[in-house]
Amino acid sequence: MILAGALTREVTEYLRNSNTVLIPVGSLEQHGEAAPLACDTIIPVRLCAAAGMKNGTAVTPAVTFGMSENHMEFPGTVTLQPSTLSALARDISVSLYSHGFRKIIFLSGHGGNRSPITDGIMEAYENCPDADMRYIAYWELPGVRKKQQELFCQDPGYHVTVTEVSMVWHLMGRQMPLFERVKFPPEPATSSLISRHRWKELYPDGGAGSDLKYVSGEKGEVFFDFLVNSLCLYLEALNR
Amino acid sequence: MILAGALTREVTEYLRNSNTVLIPVGSLEQHGEAAPLACDTIIPVRLCAAAGMKNGTAVTPAVTFGMSENHMEFPGTVTLQPSTLSALARDISVSLYSHGFRKIIFLSGHGGNRSPITDGIMEAYENCPDADMRYIAYWELPGVRKKQQELFCQDPGYHVTVTEVSMVWHLMGRQMPLFERVKFPPEPATSSLISRHRWKELYPDGGAGSDLKYVSGEKGEVFFDFLVNSLCLYLEALNR
Amino acid sequence: MILAGALTREVTEYLRNSNTVLIPVGSLEQHGEAAPLACDTIIPVRLCAAAGMKNGTAVTPAVTFGMSENHMEFPGTVTLQPSTLSALARDISVSLYSHGFRKIIFLSGHGGNRSPITDGIMEAYENCPDADMRYIAYWELPGVRKKQQELFCQDPGYHVTVTEVSMVWHLMGRQMPLFERVKFPPEPATSSLISRHRWKELYPDGGAGSDLKYVSGEKGEVFFDFLVNSLCLYLEALNR
Amino acid sequence: MILAGALTREVTEYLRNSNTVLIPVGSLEQHGEAAPLACDTIIPVRLCAAAGMKNGTAVTPAVTFGMSENHMEFPGTVTLQPSTLSALARDISVSLYSHGFRKIIFLSGHGGNRSPITDGIMEAYENCPDADMRYIAYWELPGVRKKQQELFCQDPGYHVTVTEVSMVWHLMGRQMPLFERVKFPPEPATSSLISRHRWKELYPDGGAGSDLKYVSGEKGEVFFDFLVNSLCLYLEALNR
Amino acid sequence: MILAGALTREVTEYLRNSNTVLIPVGSLEQHGEAAPLACDTIIPVRLCAAAGMKNGTAVTPAVTFGMSENHMEFPGTVTLQPSTLSALARDISVSLYSHGFRKIIFLSGHGGNRSPITDGIMEAYENCPDADMRYIAYWELPGVRKKQQELFCQDPGYHVTVTEVSMVWHLMGRQMPLFERVKFPPEPATSSLISRHRWKELYPDGGAGSDLKYVSGEKGEVFFDFLVNSLCLYLEALNR
Amino acid sequence: MILAGALTREVTEYLRNSNTVLIPVGSLEQHGEAAPLACDTIIPVRLCAAAGMKNGTAVTPAVTFGMSENHMEFPGTVTLQPSTLSALARDISVSLYSHGFRKIIFLSGHGGNRSPITDGIMEAYENCPDADMRYIAYWELPGVRKKQQELFCQDPGYHVTVTEVSMVWHLMGRQMPLFERVKFPPEPATSSLISRHRWKELYPDGGAGSDLKYVSGEKGEVFFDFLVNSLCLYLEALNR
Repeated sequence: MILAGALTREVTEYLRNSNTVLIPVGSLEQHGEAAPLACDTIIPVRLCAAAGMKNGTAVTPAVTFGMSENHMEFPGTVTLQPSTLSALARDISVSLYSHGFRKIIFLSGHGGNRSPITDGIMEAYENCPDADMRYIAYWELPGVRKKQQELFCQDPGYHVTVTEVSMVWHLMGRQMPLFERVKFPPEPATSSLISRHRWKELYPDGGAGSDLKYVSGEKGEVFFDFLVNSLCLYLEALNR
Repeated sequence: MILAGALTREVTEYLRNSNTVLIPVGSLEQHGEAAPLACDTIIPVRLCAAAGMKNGTAVTPAVTFGMSENHMEFPGTVTLQPSTLSALARDISVSLYSHGFRKIIFLSGHGGNRSPITDGIMEAYENCPDADMRYIAYWELPGVRKKQQELFCQDPGYHVTVTEVSMVWHLMGRQMPLFERVKFPPEPATSSLISRHRWKELYPDGGAGSDLKYVSGEKGEVFFDFLVNSLCLYLEALNR
Repeated sequence: MILAGALTREVTEYLRNSNTVLIPVGSLEQHGEAAPLACDTIIPVRLCAAAGMKNGTAVTPAVTFGMSENHMEFPGTVTLQPSTLSALARDISVSLYSHGFRKIIFLSGHGGNRSPITDGIMEAYENCPDADMRYIAYWELPGVRKKQQELFCQDPGYHVTVTEVSMVWHLMGRQMPLFERVKFPPEPATSSLISRHRWKELYPDGGAGSDLKYVSGEKGEVFFDFLVNSLCLYLEALNR
Repeated sequence: MILAGALTREVTEYLRNSNTVLIPVGSLEQHGEAAPLACDTIIPVRLCAAAGMKNGTAVTPAVTFGMSENHMEFPGTVTLQPSTLSALARDISVSLYSHGFRKIIFLSGHGGNRSPITDGIMEAYENCPDADMRYIAYWELPGVRKKQQELFCQDPGYHVTVTEVSMVWHLMGRQMPLFERVKFPPEPATSSLISRHRWKELYPDGGAGSDLKYVSGEKGEVFFDFLVNSLCLYLEALNR
Repeated sequence: MILAGALTREVTEYLRNSNTVLIPVGSLEQHGEAAPLACDTIIPVRLCAAAGMKNGTAVTPAVTFGMSENHMEFPGTVTLQPSTLSALARDISVSLYSHGFRKIIFLSGHGGNRSPITDGIMEAYENCPDADMRYIAYWELPGVRKKQQELFCQDPGYHVTVTEVSMVWHLMGRQMPLFERVKFPPEPATSSLISRHRWKELYPDGGAGSDLKYVSGEKGEVFFDFLVNSLCLYLEALNR
Repeated sequence: MILAGALTREVTEYLRNSNTVLIPVGSLEQHGEAAPLACDTIIPVRLCAAAGMKNGTAVTPAVTFGMSENHMEFPGTVTLQPSTLSALARDISVSLYSHGFRKIIFLSGHGGNRSPITDGIMEAYENCPDADMRYIAYWELPGVRKKQQELFCQDPGYHVTVTEVSMVWHLMGRQMPLFERVKFPPEPATSSLISRHRWKELYPDGGAGSDLKYVSGEKGEVFFDFLVNSLCLYLEALNR
């Protein structure tokens, strides 16, 4: 059930049989020449909608801005302070819990959201003692890593990834534009937290860790279908 | 320019000739039997998109959750604490300003967002000294009040308004469903700030101040076109 | 009952028969050459005191500093960050509620306080579920607008208003000083939120929207008496 | 100069020759049967006003609510969370500094304000690097302790003190009412921080550490004059 | 250089040749029957001290409390709200940066600290634009995973891990006590964020994902030496 | 009981007979040439440990960073914003209370921590209604002032005190180094809150109010033993 288009009465009915809800979370941030600013929002929005359509799970509107500090030197990027995004995740969780939702899943298309949303959820537990709250990026869904490697390459990269570029244009109903098939510099070490200033220095073309020669719109469609399926299986397992 | 679908390079180009940006802000909250939960988001999103298409103004993705404390007794509603929404508006403003935007306009479809967003903007001024930041609800656009009265009735109401119900189904591409043409109790006094508990008591059917007998999908379409035009004129005046 | 001068035992007695309390809220901010810095505090303080004397309603000491960001280029102005004023209003509400007050009314003399105090009240509802909390500016009291127009002029203005200048000197027990009867530039559009920098540019003489030729100390006295009466009627209606 | 009644232009003139400002800070809290709720505000307000009249120092309106957690079991008390009072002190400091004030003195009548206001000032230093900011309670002014002992007794107490009861009625222009000349239980140890619950248990009559048999309105007048003098000398020393 | 025991002058000297600093971060939380409450602090404290001794890197005192929400049902555990730990990390970073430190590394012994400290660092970048700040857990140091598997087993577990139990007693200078060599239930899924209530249900004996039969004090010593070496190599690489 | 080295089960046992806990709090800040940066942490840590060993009281790990704004011009100093330290004290209090601790004592070695920790405790009372929480500096323990004067001099000073320098080297197991026996300028007035900028001006050698000619390592040992004894008596009195 897409909550955006539902009546309050329909939510009451939904809650008689289910207490799961998906919240797609993304960002508005540069993706170089290869993908649009909302790339990380479009994918989880479409993914949740498709799964919600298939198995009926409730889906809220998306969190459309994320923590994108490292991309702020590139025009169009909007970043939330981590504390703002935490508060947002906390308030959404507490609101949904108050209506009876218990399995509350933030489905993310942007890696930088992990820490702030995790923090917001941990804070929300004070008011949601018996909830089961989760933050999962679409590339962490079961089987996805393997499928990724099968379809595209060993490592789809860190920012402006092979997989997101392959999927996003199709999901927007547009033809993939022409852009240089750049091989970006290797991604930062796990332990390294990059400021906006250093990102611009290290990654002047925007992307990190990916080799765009592996991008393929056709494979993007196949991959997205796989994601939808994987999310449905994940939700099923959750409700068993 | 719809920022969601734009490349960072296109934003750089846009900023050579313009520094205006629209941020649609809405909510996810009950609208009784007459309108869907995201009603207050759908209208400004579509309005800004239409204006952006017509005159090229940059439009960000929407703020999809708002301050909806008084509707929290109705399932599906999500409310942000005022301080959360203030921080969100502040961070968005500061981010956009850092790229060169100077006329930053929050276009709202939900009255309850006024105080938190106003507060966020006032706080943002510390870092955006020469910006011109605004919060405007679509019903405050020039000429709208008169047109409202001309098309529908003297007062379209306070919550679940005649005008929003008339517009929203069309904007969603759906046929208007059947619902009782309720006349809701009169709206609260201006000075009165209503908690979730009292709203449920005073307005058990959700709406306030409106008489749904005046709802009309056809007039809704006409009215929406008027809004688009009014917003374009407002933006033009701003840039003169 | 003026709480400042009361004993705790007297408050206990008061609460046996009434649960209403008035909190006057103002600011310390420039009023050009025509009114003193505390103008917006003096009026609600005296108004609440007069009503409290007449009908016994409890009145707290005033909130003497407000949100006055736009006047900060003028020496003597003190501004609170919106979040500070929100927290102040929240803490006052929660404290009064804990003693048994249920009708908690912030009576304001300064327009800029509306958003922060509204936000503070909305946040306080979490701990004051069955309270009836309000924010009302004295110019919103029943009948005031009409009386204003009758006594002074069509529109008393936005800052350094005809009505506040007419009342304040009398309330301070001083003779009205000589000052130029300026006609200030028109007030900003409703949607426009003005920073300190732009206010100084747009309104170098401090005031906005008013024509001081309509100022009259005699009418100020009449008008103030009307306000007292109107507030008493408002409180009566509240308790019916 | 009393800022409440001054024009912005007069503040500009004042700042040519002085950069000192006094901010009286008090509370609204129970004082048992012996003193009114605003006792701790009335004394510093009148003290600063008298000094300001004598030597021309600028005085702002009072902070009328303080940190009064331990008195919350007594009706009429209002308490601010420590973080709220800190933010208030910070914002006032930063505002005054921005106009050119450099010696910014919070003159307190309530002991519980020390920690929150100290914290607010320490935070304000980030934006006021070369200010000299102080928090001083009237009983800490030079010579006061000795005078206290000379006029009244060895130790005037901790709450509902001999000295405040002796001064406050006179300052309000009222005759001292009749009340029992209680000897309250000894004050809490310095290291002990008392919650509202324990205060009520330990001090059911409100006061702590004082013996009201030493109260004297005549001596209160003498003592207040001494305070005014002491504050003037303190300010003189500051400006040498 | 151990900062705890250094003079301010020695820090000035250090900063002439190096700008690296290590901050050990741990927690106080239950480790079942197999390890003491401060286990996650003891390891990084000793690790940083050993590396600091070997190659001279500056080491601050430890952050001794962490984000341990999920262990709160077990007495002795202390948890910081995520926002508190973020603020702590931010303030430490900004302080160190102000003296000239540029490579600021939080070396963690507790997984739950990752999100809050990451958020604090991202917030600190506003005031530390050209810093290189990192958060790294000791099990993420180069080569550690492989060594772990070589010495102990495939997977040392998630909480009350084989490796920490093997090291901690030796580091405390104590003999390893007797405890049952439990095999704990499998660790939670990556996406799953566990509240205190659910942890107690899922992991009544405290640990998760580890099989204590692999614990070995002798191997613990070998492993700790490996960690020290690995950290030294990591720091060297950082300074090349 | 030293909590750092205890098992959760041992805490459960402890709580059957006692509900007292000590939290040592210090700082990392310059102490000129005479004492190491962690001087204010080392003393309370060792003091609490000694008392805990003697009479079994539970002792947590130390709060190792404090509010040290005024020392920030001296390299190596780390300062927490007052609000950060308040939150830290609040979270520690609330965590310990949740397990059953009721007498929660912050034992401080640094004067600048008083306000922030006091504020944190006052805020924690909302969730710890029947706790007895305290903040005490070691120099405030019973009998200490007199012993101080007996052993050393009339006034040990304000920063880099005679007593702390006399104790700290011994507690670190080091020989006292050679340093100039400076007589520092007199300490600031009680009411004066000193910024980092003014501290550097007033106290370029770091210390304030002390005359280091009175420093004596032998007396330091005697004095420390006295402190341990005094703390034990204080805890005994608390439990009577």
